[in-house]
Amino acid sequence: MNDNKSTNIIWHDGKVTRDRRSQLMKQKGATLWFTGLSASGKSTIAVEVEEALLEREKVAYRLDGDNIRHGLNRNLGFSADDRHENIRRIGEVSKLFADAGVISLCSFISPYQADRDEVRKIHQEHQIPFIEIFVDCSLDVLEERDPKGLYKKARAGEIKGFTGIDAPYEAPISMELHLRTDQLSLKEECQVVIDYLLENNHL
Amino acid sequence: MNDNKSTNIIWHDGKVTRDRRSQLMKQKGATLWFTGLSASGKSTIAVEVEEALLEREKVAYRLDGDNIRHGLNRNLGFSADDRHENIRRIGEVSKLFADAGVISLCSFISPYQADRDEVRKIHQEHQIPFIEIFVDCSLDVLEERDPKGLYKKARAGEIKGFTGIDAPYEAPISMELHLRTDQLSLKEECQVVIDYLLENNHL
Repeated sequence: MNDNKSTNIIWHDGKVTRDRRSQLMKQKGATLWFTGLSASGKSTIAVEVEEALLEREKVAYRLDGDNIRHGLNRNLGFSADDRHENIRRIGEVSKLFADAGVISLCSFISPYQADRDEVRKIHQEHQIPFIEIFVDCSLDVLEERDPKGLYKKARAGEIKGFTGIDAPYEAPISMELHLRTDQLSLKEECQVVIDYLLENNHL
Repeated sequence: MNDNKSTNIIWHDGKVTRDRRSQLMKQKGATLWFTGLSASGKSTIAVEVEEALLEREKVAYRLDGDNIRHGLNRNLGFSADDRHENIRRIGEVSKLFADAGVISLCSFISPYQADRDEVRKIHQEHQIPFIEIFVDCSLDVLEERDPKGLYKKARAGEIKGFTGIDAPYEAPISMELHLRTDQLSLKEECQVVIDYLLENNHL
């Protein structure tokens, strides 16, 4: 005979498991959402924050174009609908990671406030911290950096719909953190993020 | 000045991070994929295995209809295409969890071998263990259990395309584990899974 019934009732409550997992991991889940123009330094700061968290024995996981565009979102293109769906799916997955107790680091241009607000809402509905971080750098500096030559191509019209050139970027208004990557060193940026997490009881 | 360049090069290699995260968490990621008919006990055994892993101080996370159908896959219906996409996305997300060092427990009917094979392939491509577990129970017993009255409705033609009644279930052929939930107790089933994980060096 199957003796599962009571166990089933007790353990299907996700919240109980979330708290116990949190105790076991000695950390709480949260999503850090890095938004900003191409080459502004989103992935770079996410990598640095992940390293700083690892040093503090905290488990973090990065979601970025590398592991999303070739996997979960491989069937999405760059139409308006697909861009929206891209961010929505990432937001849902990040919420799951944070629910699992992981500090999830998301680096995506995510140019539209409405999309970022939707992701925030997904987190709020599940009482999971969502920390929007504006990775800000002047266009002048970005066009000078231009590590992949994308701005040059966009200016030449070889790439269409490039955010910041011929597609809009809606800068966050009420973000939790504003990092000026053209004014701070990477170490300084990282410290700002870690300090924020400490001060707000996320670590 | 931004001093990120070398850090960037070193840390963009996901594999290095995976190993370090694994050391920190004292565990390795893997996906346990529970497949079987409705009411066969997929979620029940996943909950029990999660509990057993928590007791061993291992971090597990369950993906199931509750946290997927209302979130990531809320925009999918039950057409053939949508069912395929449903499983594909879950497979991709489970792979990300396992990559993050978490033991991911997926409970989905997932009736088609081709879909399960695709999920296996996604894992293999990233050298992440994929353990297919056939949660098997005779239809007679399932129709007797019928906790939500779904089999009755399907027999009456009130639900169309119900797996096992008027839609096919392709039983796994070369799965890692075969659990007969109409013959074993929940504790026994759980022990089989834990023993498998121990014997195959996943714990």
